[in-house]
Amino acid sequence: MSKEITARSEDYSQWYNDLVLKGGLADYSAVKGCMVIKPYGFGLWEGMRDVLDKKFKDTGHQNAYFPLFIPKSFLSKEAAHIEGFAKECAVVTHYRLKNDPNGGGVIVDPEAKLEEELIVRPTSETIIWNTYKSWIQSHRDLPLLINQWANVVRWEMRTRLFLRTAEFLWQEGHTAHATAQEAVAETRQMLDVYADFAENWMAMPVIKGVKTPNERFAGAVDTYCIEALMQDGKALQAGTSHFLGQNFAKAFDVQFTNKENKLEYVWATSWGVSTRLIGALVMAHSDDDGLILPPRIAPLQVVIVPIYKNEEQKARIDEKVNALVAELKQAGIRVKYDDADHARPGWKFAEYELKGVPVRIALGARDLENNVAEVARRDNKTKESLSLDGLTGAIQLLLEDIQQNMYNKAKTYRDEHITPVDTWEEFVATLDGKAGFVAAHWDGTPETEEAIKEKTKATIRCIPLNNPQSPGQCILTGKPSKERVLFARAY
Amino acid sequence: MSKEITARSEDYSQWYNDLVLKGGLADYSAVKGCMVIKPYGFGLWEGMRDVLDKKFKDTGHQNAYFPLFIPKSFLSKEAAHIEGFAKECAVVTHYRLKNDPNGGGVIVDPEAKLEEELIVRPTSETIIWNTYKSWIQSHRDLPLLINQWANVVRWEMRTRLFLRTAEFLWQEGHTAHATAQEAVAETRQMLDVYADFAENWMAMPVIKGVKTPNERFAGAVDTYCIEALMQDGKALQAGTSHFLGQNFAKAFDVQFTNKENKLEYVWATSWGVSTRLIGALVMAHSDDDGLILPPRIAPLQVVIVPIYKNEEQKARIDEKVNALVAELKQAGIRVKYDDADHARPGWKFAEYELKGVPVRIALGARDLENNVAEVARRDNKTKESLSLDGLTGAIQLLLEDIQQNMYNKAKTYRDEHITPVDTWEEFVATLDGKAGFVAAHWDGTPETEEAIKEKTKATIRCIPLNNPQSPGQCILTGKPSKERVLFARAY
Repeated sequence: MSKEITARSEDYSQWYNDLVLKGGLADYSAVKGCMVIKPYGFGLWEGMRDVLDKKFKDTGHQNAYFPLFIPKSFLSKEAAHIEGFAKECAVVTHYRLKNDPNGGGVIVDPEAKLEEELIVRPTSETIIWNTYKSWIQSHRDLPLLINQWANVVRWEMRTRLFLRTAEFLWQEGHTAHATAQEAVAETRQMLDVYADFAENWMAMPVIKGVKTPNERFAGAVDTYCIEALMQDGKALQAGTSHFLGQNFAKAFDVQFTNKENKLEYVWATSWGVSTRLIGALVMAHSDDDGLILPPRIAPLQVVIVPIYKNEEQKARIDEKVNALVAELKQAGIRVKYDDADHARPGWKFAEYELKGVPVRIALGARDLENNVAEVARRDNKTKESLSLDGLTGAIQLLLEDIQQNMYNKAKTYRDEHITPVDTWEEFVATLDGKAGFVAAHWDGTPETEEAIKEKTKATIRCIPLNNPQSPGQCILTGKPSKERVLFARAY
Repeated sequence: MSKEITARSEDYSQWYNDLVLKGGLADYSAVKGCMVIKPYGFGLWEGMRDVLDKKFKDTGHQNAYFPLFIPKSFLSKEAAHIEGFAKECAVVTHYRLKNDPNGGGVIVDPEAKLEEELIVRPTSETIIWNTYKSWIQSHRDLPLLINQWANVVRWEMRTRLFLRTAEFLWQEGHTAHATAQEAVAETRQMLDVYADFAENWMAMPVIKGVKTPNERFAGAVDTYCIEALMQDGKALQAGTSHFLGQNFAKAFDVQFTNKENKLEYVWATSWGVSTRLIGALVMAHSDDDGLILPPRIAPLQVVIVPIYKNEEQKARIDEKVNALVAELKQAGIRVKYDDADHARPGWKFAEYELKGVPVRIALGARDLENNVAEVARRDNKTKESLSLDGLTGAIQLLLEDIQQNMYNKAKTYRDEHITPVDTWEEFVATLDGKAGFVAAHWDGTPETEEAIKEKTKATIRCIPLNNPQSPGQCILTGKPSKERVLFARAY
């Protein structure tokens, strides 16, 4: 087989790249740090997007679209925000090309210089809050619950397909509220939406928590996050939801008349998940033979491969399969009958294994005689012979079982990789050994957090919500601490 | 009422802007030429996108995503292409900002200059064909049928909301084929998809035709288009489908091994429609009271407004309406019950009229007693009292009737505005008078086409498909011509 996958144990990073490239999810592009999302990968994103979009709408949000470009001066209006984003942005300075009069080919026309440079949005708080200024006057205009699906650009120096790319696709919710309480409730609600999506659709358990000030979004009062664990023991931030306080309202002078007819600054939230989730999905579940996709978001849930020796057998199989495909589709199952004659069944099996299709059905002439089909599940690689009678119902149950099994497996792994430690030696040994999340005491200062990061490359992933309060001593400084926080090396 | 709309007869252009702005479709932004698409306008786009996306998938296409940025050198690889797009592109030259050491605030970091400038995609042929080079080797890889939903940027100097904006949203199909014949068939198929969408969803009749060389897409062998007529008698190009020949395959060296094992260049098409369609929709149907949206793509198809004097009446109406809303939703109808108590029914009527909601149902206490509701249709402003029994079925029929009526009305207007003329005087008089399409003979030369455009601002919109062949003399030069072509002033 031509599409060989590097084993995880051999080179985890290469294994990941192999899956993304050979599994048909994405490709490198001619533009440094930007990727091409291939049809199979984009199908996965479409499925994820549709589920999330429905959840956003069910919680009262509407979609809108704001400009790709942000005037340079806007970025600077919120002090922390410019600090966070100035170092990695694409800057548009001109609006025309022309032929070089000195024969140097096509060049930037120096006469077409913009008066003010435009930044390709790294995130849209500034352009959106500048717009909200004209949309919000009264408490009747609140809450304003808007989401945007868009591309954004952050000029990362070290990129990885899906995990960290210069351009990526995401959604960014931007809401405006009359009170701090309402805005915090919105922030938490959207965190719950993300956690629900990660666990029940992606089959990926997550820990909900709040970031330390060091790890906060640039411009936020509080950043909430969901943190997942990958198979190499590294953590991955899978989504964030920010309570922005009145920071952006003040920066863009967005005030409203409250019920008492007094002017107040508006309270804000923003929240987002991105195509990074696809990277998380790949690393949370897949194995050395390829992707393993959870049924609920797999672009293709079932593939059927015919096995025949002659056209007469093929015709009989076709007849049976066409009826089965119609029935599966009727039941809402995404199914494909792959009867292409230029590839052998073994090649197809390997290909769909690589692509992580949850269920593969093989049907041969003898199976037909026995009124059965061979049904193989991708997650645990078991096979069984199932009756063709009632097969659709059996497949439905099987897909549910696979979904649940994938979640359970990932959760068991994750739970086994949360290690409470009380000494610095244990801390370092755990990070270098089994890795995962290390639950340790910390003295609460940014300086200690930074020192730990420098020594071990581990960061505080989050302080879990409803974290048990139990006094202890900081792992590094020995100073008093009232709760453990979760450290990990992370993507 | 605060939201006054300029009459068409007074100022057509202002009327259009009023509808877009006050109807809640879009807003100006802080970035010159870029618009904000507001939730109601974006809802309309989502509906249009979903219908088109399904049609693309039903014809075998898959979605993918390619980078926002195009290396400057790529644009230059196809000679006509760079000519067409160099004059209006956003150029990224730097990748970082920094604090001005001289205290000038945040400035572009001169040390962060890109080696090669990047162009924000005005269209994606070049970056896509550079990618296809590595995806296409054999005839087995063809056809490659891909579509992308994306934002693109063309630095227009004179912009109009939706009709011509620096950034706009669109879809661009890019397909690769083994033969010219297949590629031409694809080009024509997608033109048919667009025409079907325009006529049967947007209720907007279109003329399918082919562009003259002057009006072709930069890099195409043939550009097919659908042309619609607006209420001011100006034409609007609503969609284009290009047969690109082997131009891009040659520019990016994309060859495949054919069945005879010989290398050949691949044949290409591209096709697109954009948020411009929303501008067309507004201008094709609306009136001086606001938008008129065709039911099949209206974000909201039915609005129900209660009319009551006290809470007891309100409670009885609520009970009835809640059941009705459930039934309408069950029937797949997009319905809203607007029982907000801070606005009077008259204000609501005007608001939904402005927003073009196809059907408005008003329900008062006396209506309830009589088991009827007042049903008003937006398109022709007629009202009737309908029994509450079987109302859902009646509404379904009504929505279909409105859709058909809107199409018929637009088609009658369009057909009355195709005027055959045989002299230059008639030609000019028609353009200055009733306007619309003028069917006239033309000698077939770009020079004459250009001269007519300079004298009258009219361009050849298209040579209709299956155009009757009838000899005549060019309207300007008197030279022989074998068929009439359609001239118009256009958006």
